[in-house]
Amino acid sequence: MNNEPSIDVISSVLPPASVLVGTEIGPKYFTDWFGRPVPPPSIVVRPSSTAEVSKLLALCDANNWTVVSQGGMTGLVSAALPHPNEIVLSLDRMSRMLEVDVKAKTMTVEAGISLQQVHESAEEHGLMFPLDLASRGSATIGGTIATNAGGTMVIRFGMMRELVMGLEAVLADGTVVNAMHPLLKNNTGYDVKQNFIGTEGTLGIVTKAILRLFSKPKEKTVALCAVKGFSELVSLLDSVRNDMEGGLFAFEAMWGSYYELAISLPNVKAALPAGSPFYALVEIADFDGASRLENLLQEALTANCISDAVIAKSEAEARAIWCIREAALDAVGQKSPFVTFDVSLRLDRMMAYLDAVERQINSALGAATVSTIAHLGDNNLHVAVHYDAKLGDVRADVKQIVYRVTGDYQGSISAEHGIGIEKRDYLHHSRSKEEIALMRKIKHSLDPNHVLNPNRIFRT
Amino acid sequence: MNNEPSIDVISSVLPPASVLVGTEIGPKYFTDWFGRPVPPPSIVVRPSSTAEVSKLLALCDANNWTVVSQGGMTGLVSAALPHPNEIVLSLDRMSRMLEVDVKAKTMTVEAGISLQQVHESAEEHGLMFPLDLASRGSATIGGTIATNAGGTMVIRFGMMRELVMGLEAVLADGTVVNAMHPLLKNNTGYDVKQNFIGTEGTLGIVTKAILRLFSKPKEKTVALCAVKGFSELVSLLDSVRNDMEGGLFAFEAMWGSYYELAISLPNVKAALPAGSPFYALVEIADFDGASRLENLLQEALTANCISDAVIAKSEAEARAIWCIREAALDAVGQKSPFVTFDVSLRLDRMMAYLDAVERQINSALGAATVSTIAHLGDNNLHVAVHYDAKLGDVRADVKQIVYRVTGDYQGSISAEHGIGIEKRDYLHHSRSKEEIALMRKIKHSLDPNHVLNPNRIFRT
Repeated sequence: MNNEPSIDVISSVLPPASVLVGTEIGPKYFTDWFGRPVPPPSIVVRPSSTAEVSKLLALCDANNWTVVSQGGMTGLVSAALPHPNEIVLSLDRMSRMLEVDVKAKTMTVEAGISLQQVHESAEEHGLMFPLDLASRGSATIGGTIATNAGGTMVIRFGMMRELVMGLEAVLADGTVVNAMHPLLKNNTGYDVKQNFIGTEGTLGIVTKAILRLFSKPKEKTVALCAVKGFSELVSLLDSVRNDMEGGLFAFEAMWGSYYELAISLPNVKAALPAGSPFYALVEIADFDGASRLENLLQEALTANCISDAVIAKSEAEARAIWCIREAALDAVGQKSPFVTFDVSLRLDRMMAYLDAVERQINSALGAATVSTIAHLGDNNLHVAVHYDAKLGDVRADVKQIVYRVTGDYQGSISAEHGIGIEKRDYLHHSRSKEEIALMRKIKHSLDPNHVLNPNRIFRT
Repeated sequence: MNNEPSIDVISSVLPPASVLVGTEIGPKYFTDWFGRPVPPPSIVVRPSSTAEVSKLLALCDANNWTVVSQGGMTGLVSAALPHPNEIVLSLDRMSRMLEVDVKAKTMTVEAGISLQQVHESAEEHGLMFPLDLASRGSATIGGTIATNAGGTMVIRFGMMRELVMGLEAVLADGTVVNAMHPLLKNNTGYDVKQNFIGTEGTLGIVTKAILRLFSKPKEKTVALCAVKGFSELVSLLDSVRNDMEGGLFAFEAMWGSYYELAISLPNVKAALPAGSPFYALVEIADFDGASRLENLLQEALTANCISDAVIAKSEAEARAIWCIREAALDAVGQKSPFVTFDVSLRLDRMMAYLDAVERQINSALGAATVSTIAHLGDNNLHVAVHYDAKLGDVRADVKQIVYRVTGDYQGSISAEHGIGIEKRDYLHHSRSKEEIALMRKIKHSLDPNHVLNPNRIFRT
């Protein structure tokens, strides 16, 4: 059991500006993206430097105090909300842009910087950082590293893991690990940074990072296609991927039921009529992308793979098409109550999986429907299960069923959102017991006193 | 100190076909790529299954015996040669192709399969596996995973780390860790496979893997350019990268001194005359790559960035151009004695680094010259330092100087070859002491009795 932290001791080693107590603690430190607040913590530490993070953690390690680390509070697995007796460690004051190296195409930042600031600074230099999320204004680089964030461009640029060249992290005992290597290739022993990417702050607190930047494409083309069936959707993905080489920036699939919900929103315009079983949003970056894509879609029409398609003629039309996809939460929110899932399945198992989910929920709970969108090229489905309000709160039952079926189909119960607290009890559906034992071994080795984000991912 | 293994005990738990002793042990088990043999081991274990690997390791862990794991013996850092009392664990009988899934674009293999077999099986299905090495006929998938191998296509497809979707590994105590997830996205706790990629067999023995396959490009275009200076070389890289998007498959730079050595070989044809300070081999995959590349090179000529260029008109011409680059060992071997290095530097530090290397070796040892080639887009230099034979064996002095200078310029002493035994004593030039301490902590946690490849990477 963690001890109650001593405000006096912490205040004696950190500057006053770095410590908040009592009414100084605003709701942002105990409320997450879902808007569900928990009881406020007794103390929030907002270090201004790595040295302060180190001091705090050394103190926690010595006194059996625990910390919960916070970035932009936009995570979707309830990992960053403080539990009783936990010290909130917020990186919100460590948000400086340290360097943009245009030639080397790297950016060095403090972990608390927002994704949006990273995008804007890259753009100022004619470059791009190819990871984007709807929560870009709040989400921080530290948070996206800790959760190995994904998004819509993973099909071309990979997840956060592929975009971090180097980082600095503070271990549970206060040791500062400097792994700030500005190098793409560096096979010098274990790749130390992997311990801090996607481990949800349980092995160390990321304080700085060197990010990879890329050239901004000269032109982008966005198209929306009405697709006749799932196998046709996969064919379309294949042919775009084969023809466009690395020019394919996004391939977002929307099931017909989702599309209808989305276009019924007042601020969303239907770029194509409803009624098709599937829709695909395709984004191509290429100096002659428009004409190449037009040819390819013409072929798909002739081959009876798609029934209709529209290519955006302007930036505004492109934005309107993206809007159909990005309105996801509002769209599915129209059919409340619902539970959303972020799962990953082999392409050839997706349809059978979705059928099984719908069938099993129906047989257990009665009339449920499913709205689905997918980062199809990444195996990643976002599924909303809508159930009857009369059933009361059956969220736990729905989750149990969906995660069990995900395991049956050898899927991942978390493609990109992480485990946190939300999915902790279902981890065994996607990881073997030897894998989980290995995770625990590493946790125990790096944080024997369970200082860092305890009970996230697995119970400690 | 490790104990001498008991042949009787090992033979009593493993089938006879899995154990070699005495004169049954051929030189391949104690000779590496450099042809330098060491004393033969007393026992070689060649398991036919993961279960046998597990049995052997459990036995070793209980008896304080140590193993050295072997793939194709093509590593360049002397990691796989047996030390006294080490049991050789060769994966050469676990070399089966288990599955090619054309739709999901994955291949499942046993770790002992050769890279060339992987290439051939992918090609049979119209797909490609985008990691290639000169040693492809012998190098195994297990070895390329353990060393996180690189090669010429890293600029487009990344290193082995990016190409492994899932794997199975056996821990030092015999525990089989099944992380065979056929999924691109899988944020379910720690990414267990990272512990076995690039860790040189010190944390576990990889027994199976699921690899990512890609569509084979319809067309490839290869060009060789004579480039006027280093900054022009970087400009050319930038413009090819910007214009070709993901179509750039390789950008290999050759310094003039290397080029002259290469084209003086009897089997290498000069595609362009000698005399230019730099040469760049550019490979583009794209359905209209040839015309796009032609335009781009025309612009580079006009901008006075390159002085000459030739685009291969046939497969044979493309091969001939690649031959100039791939003849590296023969080319530099003409000026013996020499020591080769595989280092990684930020682009903007490369030239100053090379100057410093040449200057410092000259001032310490007298007349030395340097031949350099580079995977330029990956920060990776392969440098050969030629020294005067009259100096005797000064290899150790040359290494000491080069690695020290690499550290001074914040470079990596191993971009892609790994550390093994060869570079072990220089690791501190590229990794902070906190990083090395972290590596040791993880090693101790997963292999407390130092069963697996002890003393590789760091002394155990």
